[in-house]
Amino acid sequence: MSRLPIQIKLSDSKKEKPDPQTLVFGRNFTDHMFIADYDEGKGWHSPRIVPYAPVTLDPASIVLHYGQTVFEGLKAYKSEDGTVRLFRPEENMKRMNLSLDRLCMPRIDEEQALHALTQLIQIEKDWIPTLPGTSLYIRPFVIANEAFLGVAPAKKYQFYIILCPVGSYYKEGIHPIKILVENEFVRAVKGGTGGAKTAGNYASGLKAQEAADKKGYSQVLWLDGVERKYVEEVGSMNIFFKINGEVITPAINGSILEGITRKSILQLLRHWNIPVQERKLSMDEIRGAYENGQLEEVFGTGTAAVISPVGELNWDGYKMIVNDNKTGPLSKKLFETLSNIQNGNEKDSFAWILKLNSELAKLA
Amino acid sequence: MSRLPIQIKLSDSKKEKPDPQTLVFGRNFTDHMFIADYDEGKGWHSPRIVPYAPVTLDPASIVLHYGQTVFEGLKAYKSEDGTVRLFRPEENMKRMNLSLDRLCMPRIDEEQALHALTQLIQIEKDWIPTLPGTSLYIRPFVIANEAFLGVAPAKKYQFYIILCPVGSYYKEGIHPIKILVENEFVRAVKGGTGGAKTAGNYASGLKAQEAADKKGYSQVLWLDGVERKYVEEVGSMNIFFKINGEVITPAINGSILEGITRKSILQLLRHWNIPVQERKLSMDEIRGAYENGQLEEVFGTGTAAVISPVGELNWDGYKMIVNDNKTGPLSKKLFETLSNIQNGNEKDSFAWILKLNSELAKLA
Ligand SMILES: Cc1ncc(COP(=O)(O)O)c(C=O)c1O
Ligand SMILES: Cc1ncc(COP(=O)(O)O)c(C=O)c1O
Repeated sequence: MSRLPIQIKLSDSKKEKPDPQTLVFGRNFTDHMFIADYDEGKGWHSPRIVPYAPVTLDPASIVLHYGQTVFEGLKAYKSEDGTVRLFRPEENMKRMNLSLDRLCMPRIDEEQALHALTQLIQIEKDWIPTLPGTSLYIRPFVIANEAFLGVAPAKKYQFYIILCPVGSYYKEGIHPIKILVENEFVRAVKGGTGGAKTAGNYASGLKAQEAADKKGYSQVLWLDGVERKYVEEVGSMNIFFKINGEVITPAINGSILEGITRKSILQLLRHWNIPVQERKLSMDEIRGAYENGQLEEVFGTGTAAVISPVGELNWDGYKMIVNDNKTGPLSKKLFETLSNIQNGNEKDSFAWILKLNSELAKLA
Repeated sequence: MSRLPIQIKLSDSKKEKPDPQTLVFGRNFTDHMFIADYDEGKGWHSPRIVPYAPVTLDPASIVLHYGQTVFEGLKAYKSEDGTVRLFRPEENMKRMNLSLDRLCMPRIDEEQALHALTQLIQIEKDWIPTLPGTSLYIRPFVIANEAFLGVAPAKKYQFYIILCPVGSYYKEGIHPIKILVENEFVRAVKGGTGGAKTAGNYASGLKAQEAADKKGYSQVLWLDGVERKYVEEVGSMNIFFKINGEVITPAINGSILEGITRKSILQLLRHWNIPVQERKLSMDEIRGAYENGQLEEVFGTGTAAVISPVGELNWDGYKMIVNDNKTGPLSKKLFETLSNIQNGNEKDSFAWILKLNSELAKLA
């Protein structure tokens, strides 16, 4: 991508846009995508926006066998007046580089990637839904496409950005979910890839998720892989506990993904002078707080749902009902504040928003 | 695959076969491949042998984002008289089903997969090199090809078998390698996917491998992810230690891949009445044995090299030179016995060999 101009080839035919009322997550893709190639010795090159089309991979491509791939996830929001807002996209590009490093993959130029992203969104802006809660989900990802059956970093990669209009996570308003604390399976361990956004972390979680589904729980809460005592995170969310007036979230320790929503929540809480701690938090401590009536709120944080209040935690059959299974006041306030910043209904006091127009103006 | 006949479409043009003297691992593929499709509700269907060609995947395919994929690796050997031998292929199909289970993917019919494999090899038998040490590497794999950006088991999969003639691992005869004991990174942990042959396990190992390469070590020895004390395995090999006349290999514990070479070595050792133990083995114990002069041999076992003697183990700067950095007598005997069974120079006393012709006769 090294400061090269982006070639643009527009699609001859446009797909029908899905009904924003019934949009589901991750099933509809826009008319175009961004691609850049990487070859060892040559670096990133040939950045282009092309019609959305299948990826062609040699059957021996490293990504299919040895999982050398990383991804990101963020959203663009469009308000009634047509303004398109991105939420902290530079953080996603930064995190993508951390993931690329961990997987021995070549770094991208963060600024160029952001330019590519904004140009692609500009072309696809009619795809961004405006109904409350809807948005355009953005999926940048890099795959190793060298044909080689050897366990070694590839010499060839492709960087893609695809886009996907998504519906409101909470069609009937924000509501609590039930979470199962996972005792058998482990998502990640210190020294592993848990801190990176890479495919293998998600594949390894499917088995536990399937078992939780069967028991009527929508997500699992992962514990640390070493002592199996400390909480880590949930499916694709970080987790927060409000105990006796203080908000506690697991510290970044190498096996947890550092969520951008998590980071923003921490900033908001500190700004509001609510005591927060990033530290180890054991299930025993949570159970103790519950028994003392001090477990006030529990919520997950992530790009998909922003805030997901937890109404029930099941730890090996011991059920903790949090805040009467209702959305707590802090969860609600955080959800509304962040959502309003994202859709432009509240002042962007922390400079988290990148407006599409101002970014494009820089390119002009 | 459910007992359906395999459609065969032969290639119009044949690729040039590589020089068996200079063959490298994993770079040359034969003219055809096997494919079958899976759709939820329909099961496996449309088994076919077709010209080797690129895989076409929607950019949102689950395998590219969430790593739902498993693979196997085995070899076919051809002797001068044209007999083609497969080494315990039914074990690979069995292990593939274990891996598929762990990754929430649909099981294959092991017998049908074996039939597909033998038919494909029959078509490609001219690709099998006959020089000593050369063979045809066989890579069955399954990928999730549903287009969905959600962390959930896919509803669509493809099963592939691709083939790849490979050279001798030891061009200048069997010789010891240098191994670095890994203290920072972890490959797998109990409760994770280490026991399955899946992409994420290999991606997570690249960083440590890269650091070892730079220090002049050809592989890393993984320690357990919990206590970081017990040896697990090496890159793509299991590991054995001969200490004071006894052979010890880490017990299968959920985080180690159960190698088919490992299993065969254990059978051979027991048959020879050499004391063997499958148990936890700590680096402290190994160091103690070394200091007492009782660390007699160390070797890795796997399909690629069969036996790989270890001449040096570096544990955090403490270097243990094993058997004067020479291939030990037991390593040599195991290598020769297994290699000779595989290429037909020794009697197949354990019924490990499946001859291509007798398998094809069953199909006729
Ligand atoms: C494993 C994991 N943890 C946490 C998160 C939350 O991160 P973010 O707030 O950046 O969406 C995600 C999702 O993106 C995730 O996949
Ligand atoms: C992680 C790992 N361990 C061990 C092995 C050895 O297994 P096998 O003897 O079946 O080749 C392999 C390679 O196949 C492997 O990938």
